[in-house]
Amino acid sequence: MTEPVFRFSIEKSSRECLARAGIIHTRAGDVPTPVYMPVGTCGTVKTLSPAEVKELGGSIILGNTYHLYLRPGTEVLDKFGGLHRFMAWDRPMLSDSGGFQVFSMKKLNRISDEGVMFSSHLDGSKHWLTPEESMRIQRSIGAEIMMVFDECCPFPADAATAGSAVERSVRWAGRCRDDHPPMRAGQALFGIVQGSTFPDLRLESLRRTAEIGFEGLAIGGLSVGESKEEMIGILDRLMPEMPKDVPRYLMGVGSPEDLFRGVERGIDMFDCVLATRIARHGSVFTRGGRVDLTALPWRLSEDPIDRSCSCYACRTFSRGYLRHLFKAKEILALRMASLHNLTFLVNMMSEIREAIFQDRFLALKLEFLGGYLNQKEKK
Amino acid sequence: MTEPVFRFSIEKSSRECLARAGIIHTRAGDVPTPVYMPVGTCGTVKTLSPAEVKELGGSIILGNTYHLYLRPGTEVLDKFGGLHRFMAWDRPMLSDSGGFQVFSMKKLNRISDEGVMFSSHLDGSKHWLTPEESMRIQRSIGAEIMMVFDECCPFPADAATAGSAVERSVRWAGRCRDDHPPMRAGQALFGIVQGSTFPDLRLESLRRTAEIGFEGLAIGGLSVGESKEEMIGILDRLMPEMPKDVPRYLMGVGSPEDLFRGVERGIDMFDCVLATRIARHGSVFTRGGRVDLTALPWRLSEDPIDRSCSCYACRTFSRGYLRHLFKAKEILALRMASLHNLTFLVNMMSEIREAIFQDRFLALKLEFLGGYLNQKEKK
Repeated sequence: MTEPVFRFSIEKSSRECLARAGIIHTRAGDVPTPVYMPVGTCGTVKTLSPAEVKELGGSIILGNTYHLYLRPGTEVLDKFGGLHRFMAWDRPMLSDSGGFQVFSMKKLNRISDEGVMFSSHLDGSKHWLTPEESMRIQRSIGAEIMMVFDECCPFPADAATAGSAVERSVRWAGRCRDDHPPMRAGQALFGIVQGSTFPDLRLESLRRTAEIGFEGLAIGGLSVGESKEEMIGILDRLMPEMPKDVPRYLMGVGSPEDLFRGVERGIDMFDCVLATRIARHGSVFTRGGRVDLTALPWRLSEDPIDRSCSCYACRTFSRGYLRHLFKAKEILALRMASLHNLTFLVNMMSEIREAIFQDRFLALKLEFLGGYLNQKEKK
Repeated sequence: MTEPVFRFSIEKSSRECLARAGIIHTRAGDVPTPVYMPVGTCGTVKTLSPAEVKELGGSIILGNTYHLYLRPGTEVLDKFGGLHRFMAWDRPMLSDSGGFQVFSMKKLNRISDEGVMFSSHLDGSKHWLTPEESMRIQRSIGAEIMMVFDECCPFPADAATAGSAVERSVRWAGRCRDDHPPMRAGQALFGIVQGSTFPDLRLESLRRTAEIGFEGLAIGGLSVGESKEEMIGILDRLMPEMPKDVPRYLMGVGSPEDLFRGVERGIDMFDCVLATRIARHGSVFTRGGRVDLTALPWRLSEDPIDRSCSCYACRTFSRGYLRHLFKAKEILALRMASLHNLTFLVNMMSEIREAIFQDRFLALKLEFLGGYLNQKEKK
C-alpha cells in the first residue's frame, strides 16, 4: 500500500448507451467498475466484519470524515496509521469530505467563505471544518480516494441559493486542490459537481470543477428529495459533458433501479447506506422486488430470501427463521439482511459489468427491472 | 440425525480429584466432556451465526423452552421439523424445561400440583406449563437432551419451602419420565437435583431423582444468589454421591473460575449466558482476568484482546478499534466480544480436558486461576 498509483482504465464502452466498464487501479488494489461501494460510516460496514465484506465481493468501501473526525478522532487514526489498519480493511477505500453531513445534519452554526462551524451530534461541542481541515482529516483516514469539501445546498433551493453554493464550492475545490496536489501522500482527490436541479448551474459547476483538474469527478446533491425525473433529467444533461477519462461517481445513490439508471448514463461509482439501513429494518432486495422479512406470510416459509443469491444467509436460512430473528430482535437478523443486501448489489453490479462487455446492458436492465419493479414490496 | 443413540463414555478419571473426561455420543454427533455449552435462548447464540459457533468449537448448544414456546411457537418448530433445521445447527443440542424461567421471571400467576400458570413477557397472555406440556414442547424443539420440568424455589428459601419444592420436583420428574420414556423420539431426558442450600434436601433430591432413572443428572438451583462458599459446599457434599455412569450437568454456571471448580468436583456439562451477556457490555475474558474494552486506556492500544486467543477478533482487531466500536455502538463490537468470550471458554475447556487426561488438572487450575483471579477487572 505504499506505491502512489492511481489510474483509471476504460476496458469497454457500450455500443448501446453511455455505460462503460473499467478498472480503477490503486495502491490498495484494483476496483472493477461500475462499482457499488458499501458504506462504513464509523469505520465499519454496519453489522459486518471486513472479512465478510471481502467475501461478498466488496472491492472498495467508504469512510465518513464527519463521523471519524468526531470519533475516534485523528489522533487515534494517526496512531494506527490510518483507517485501513485501524479497521483491518486492506482493499481500496474512499473518504467523503464531511460536507454533506455538516450541511444536512442541521448541526450548522455558521458558514463563511473560510469554512463551516458545526456542533457535534455526540456532545454538542463546536468545530470548524474548512477545505484544508477536511484534507487534513482525510489524510489521517488515508483512503485511496478523497473528496473535496463542498457546500451542499438544501433541497429544494432557489437558483440564487444553488448558484452561490456552486460559487463557493468551486472556490473550496480550488483550495482543496492547492492543499492536496495530485497524489499527495499517495491519495487521489475527486471534485464534486453541484448545482441542485438547475441544468445551467450544473454545467457551470462541471466546467469550472473540471478545469481545476481532479483524478475523478463526482455528482453531489442528487437523491436528496428531488423526483426521479429531475434526477434523471440532470444526469441526461450532465453526463454527455463529463470528461471521459476519469471515474465518475454519483454520490449517495444506491437503489437497484438507480444503479441501472446511473450506469446507463455513464456513472462508474455509487455509494449508499440504503442497502444496509433498510436491511436493519427487515427489508431485503430480491429479483422479484423488495421483501419485508418481518411480514406474517413468511412465518412458515422455508424459502430463502432469494433462490439465486449466493450469500450465507440465502444458503443457510429460511424466510421463516429470519422473520423469527427479526421478531425476537436478534442481532443475527440485522447481520443476515445486511449481508444479503450488499451481496445482492455487488452481484448485480458484476452482472451489469459483464453485460456491458457483451453489449447487452439494455437487455439486462429490461429483464432485471421487469422482475424487480413490477411488484410492490412483498408482505 | 435419525439413529436414536445416546451413550456416555468416560475416557479418563483423574487421579487427582473427581474430574473426568468423557464423550456424550448422540445421534447428532459426539460431545467431548467436560463441556461448556453456549446458550441460544431464542434459537440463536446471540450475535453469532451457527457457522461461527461451530468454527469456535461449540459442540453442543442450548435452546430455551420458555422462549421458544412463546416465539416462534411449536407450530413453527413442527413445520420446520425442529430447532436444528430451523436455526441451521446440525450438532447436538440441549433444551431446558422452561421451569427456571417461569419461576425466576416473576411471571408466575398460579402454581399447583398440576403445573404452573404464567404470563408471557411478550404480551402478558396466560399459559399453562405442566411436566407433560414441557415434554411436548421439548419434543417439538427436538434437542438430543431434554430436561425435566422442575420447581425452582427462590433464593434464599427456608427449609420448608425448599423441601416442598423438592417434593413437587420429584413428582414432576416422575411424570416427565412417564411421558417421555428413555429415548422416546431419539431424545434423552435428564433429571434435576434441587434442594437449595440444604445438604440433606440435596441428597434426598438426588436419591429420589436418580431412582426414577434418567440418561443424565443435573444440579439446578445453584448460582442463583448464594455465596461461592455455599455453592462449593453443596457440590462437595453432593458430587461424591452422584451416579458415575451418567453425564452430570451444573445448570447456569459459567464463569471461568466456576468451570474449574465444577470440573474438579466431577461436573461434565455447564451452560451460562454470562459469556455472551457481559460481552455485549464490553467485558471480555483474558488470561489476565476480565477486561472492560470500553475503558479509556485502550483508546490507543494496538494489542488484541488476548494474545493467546485464536478467535477472529484477536487475530484481526486491536483493543483500540474494539473500544471505538463499543463507543460508536456498532454491532460488530457485540459480535467480536461474544465470539471471543465463547472461544475463550471453549478453548479453556479443551485445555482442561487435555489436562485431565494427563493428570495435571490441578496444576492447570492453579496456573490459570493464578493469572485470571489475581487482578481486578482491567480498566
